[in-house]
Amino acid sequence: MTGSPAYLAITGGIGGAKLSLGLAKILAAEELAFIVNTGDDFKHLNLHISPDVDTLVYTLAGVNNPETGWGRDGESWQFMAAMEALGGETWFQLGDKDLAMHIERTCRLQAGQTLTEATGELSKSLGIGHRIVPMSDDPVHTRVQTSGGLMDFQHYFVREQCAPKVSGFEFEGAGNAAINPEIVKWLNSEDLAGVIICPSNPFVSIDPILSIPGLREKLRDCKAPVIAVSPLIGGEAIKGPTVKIMNELNVPTTACWVAQYYADFLDGFVLDNVDRASKPEIEVAGLQVNVTNTVMVTLDDRMQLARDCLALLSKL
Amino acid sequence: MTGSPAYLAITGGIGGAKLSLGLAKILAAEELAFIVNTGDDFKHLNLHISPDVDTLVYTLAGVNNPETGWGRDGESWQFMAAMEALGGETWFQLGDKDLAMHIERTCRLQAGQTLTEATGELSKSLGIGHRIVPMSDDPVHTRVQTSGGLMDFQHYFVREQCAPKVSGFEFEGAGNAAINPEIVKWLNSEDLAGVIICPSNPFVSIDPILSIPGLREKLRDCKAPVIAVSPLIGGEAIKGPTVKIMNELNVPTTACWVAQYYADFLDGFVLDNVDRASKPEIEVAGLQVNVTNTVMVTLDDRMQLARDCLALLSKL
Repeated sequence: MTGSPAYLAITGGIGGAKLSLGLAKILAAEELAFIVNTGDDFKHLNLHISPDVDTLVYTLAGVNNPETGWGRDGESWQFMAAMEALGGETWFQLGDKDLAMHIERTCRLQAGQTLTEATGELSKSLGIGHRIVPMSDDPVHTRVQTSGGLMDFQHYFVREQCAPKVSGFEFEGAGNAAINPEIVKWLNSEDLAGVIICPSNPFVSIDPILSIPGLREKLRDCKAPVIAVSPLIGGEAIKGPTVKIMNELNVPTTACWVAQYYADFLDGFVLDNVDRASKPEIEVAGLQVNVTNTVMVTLDDRMQLARDCLALLSKL
Repeated sequence: MTGSPAYLAITGGIGGAKLSLGLAKILAAEELAFIVNTGDDFKHLNLHISPDVDTLVYTLAGVNNPETGWGRDGESWQFMAAMEALGGETWFQLGDKDLAMHIERTCRLQAGQTLTEATGELSKSLGIGHRIVPMSDDPVHTRVQTSGGLMDFQHYFVREQCAPKVSGFEFEGAGNAAINPEIVKWLNSEDLAGVIICPSNPFVSIDPILSIPGLREKLRDCKAPVIAVSPLIGGEAIKGPTVKIMNELNVPTTACWVAQYYADFLDGFVLDNVDRASKPEIEVAGLQVNVTNTVMVTLDDRMQLARDCLALLSKL
């Protein structure tokens, strides 16, 4: 497993993790690696919390909470109740099982491991064979420009439940962050057969990754085809604030707009059946389009969408 | 509650906490304060853990685990199981509820609070009115001299379950530690009516406190009487390694020896009924002796022993 993977999946939150699971089920550990957003990582109660990394790790390990999409299955909340009694901060839900990940990761980082090393070892201990790497080992913090001022992403997303009106985003630290060296190696590799941008929020899941200097250019210049799966279906997102944010940013809430947003580095786009009518418009932008079902309810849905992605890549 | 308390209880682990509860039930919050050993505090998983403080806080708040003597009631262990799955350190048991205390305390210390401030606010949030202060806000680390070399106290006590043979103890940092200013104020106060050394292990619970420069002298010189409750009953301790350590140190495993060990600052001693025969020998050392039941099974036992302590103090 020291070779370069044929496929790279770039992913953020819950939607991305769903497709990632489908891909992991049909591609062997050495064939596929994951690049994960860490823009919403934050320090809370002295713990280093990596929400998107954890969502992917828990999902691939099969220990995720299928109802919430985040956190662990069979979770309990004794810690939170005790924190409340002590007058501690409780706006960010930390389950008893989930805490182990944050505490162990924080210990490893304090002991000098990189986030890449810690993520690799922790995901391996949960039985995950596929490589999962953060976009960068350097800190990048997504800040939300809102009517109420600049806000930490988790404060906006969790504490304020995305209520503030968004006017833009900043990725603090991105300018000085280095692309994860693994990613550079993989994108430069002759073995690379394709890159898949998972159906994740373009602004808070994918843009932080693209904000690392050089990464967008590397996607543009890499020899393998790059495709994205639409995070919008009929103008709606399955989950999360994507559409609310798009409305507030005054951009069309369409799959087509997302395709164009990524068009400079994209070769193909996966569109949901309900958006079939947008296909010609996206093709005009020079992209090959695969129209299929992108709603992932069952594991079969996830695997089928993964196969559809590979089919599109093979045509490019 | 800004005045000086009439009574001070000096306490370490579980036995000390039992008598402390009895005292707290018969003395009002402003009449009684607790001085707690922090020699077995340690950093674990990046958390500041204060075992003796927590044992007392949980006991006084009525949320302690009555079976183990340490930790929380109705505790669950999801965190520990998840840590084990991640390959993290699991030799020190941290319950899901208990974790809240360690995480919140660590946050407060990192934010600049002293251990005294953090302990005060956390115990207050659990409904405790009595003041609980660590012996010092400076770090003191109990190290155990064993046949296998010098060992951190918790490694000896928990990880090695007191198996190594003990030849002595060191209290690292004690030489540079300042007595908690509250304690200095209380011991100097005209309001002080008595000091009670609770039935705690002399070597690992009380000696770390006495190792703070000046504290032993302050006990010796204070105008109020100082008494101790024997941690041994018929040559046995209710719980813990006291007798094993005494054997390894080649000292008699008797209440009388403990009385003499503290004799320089002691005015009275509380002896269990089964050790009645030792009374004259202890009186020879110049101590007044109260012979009573010191086995604390019920809350009534704890309160009665507390009353016996106050009765002895009132005679001195």
